[in-house]
Amino acid sequence: MDSNEKAVVYVRLKEGVLDPQGLTIHKALLQMGYSDFLSVRSGRFFELEINSECADIDRKIGEVCSRLLSNPVIEEFTVERIR
Amino acid sequence: MDSNEKAVVYVRLKEGVLDPQGLTIHKALLQMGYSDFLSVRSGRFFELEINSECADIDRKIGEVCSRLLSNPVIEEFTVERIR
Repeated sequence: MDSNEKAVVYVRLKEGVLDPQGLTIHKALLQMGYSDFLSVRSGRFFELEINSECADIDRKIGEVCSRLLSNPVIEEFTVERIR
Repeated sequence: MDSNEKAVVYVRLKEGVLDPQGLTIHKALLQMGYSDFLSVRSGRFFELEINSECADIDRKIGEVCSRLLSNPVIEEFTVERIR
């Protein structure tokens, strides 16, 4: 029996925060002739493998998201649990 | 009527390719006392807004994924269309 759980954390810039990486990619797309792409926003994700015997998994995931994986001032995160 | 479509492209390192960012984050988690986290893999995603009158959207998304958004030598991508 696999005793591990998985979770994926998606981190994206809050709405309204400038995304230089996305803007640069969008500019490159236009220069390459892909004029149907209207905007690009970039983000990061992290696939976490977690000991399923861990107590309080959801709380710990939330903690590491705001303490390590994201910058709460300018970023928001969503968590997807995979059982 | 909103004439735009959305797609999200997820880019991750191929299995077996070393992920220094993920390893560093995992090490930090252990140092912070979160010993229930067994591994971390990192990835990037891009939210694309696309003109829905564009012909051949799927082909164009595939092209920009392999030409610009990912490095096909070491990375793989998946596309999620949001209608």
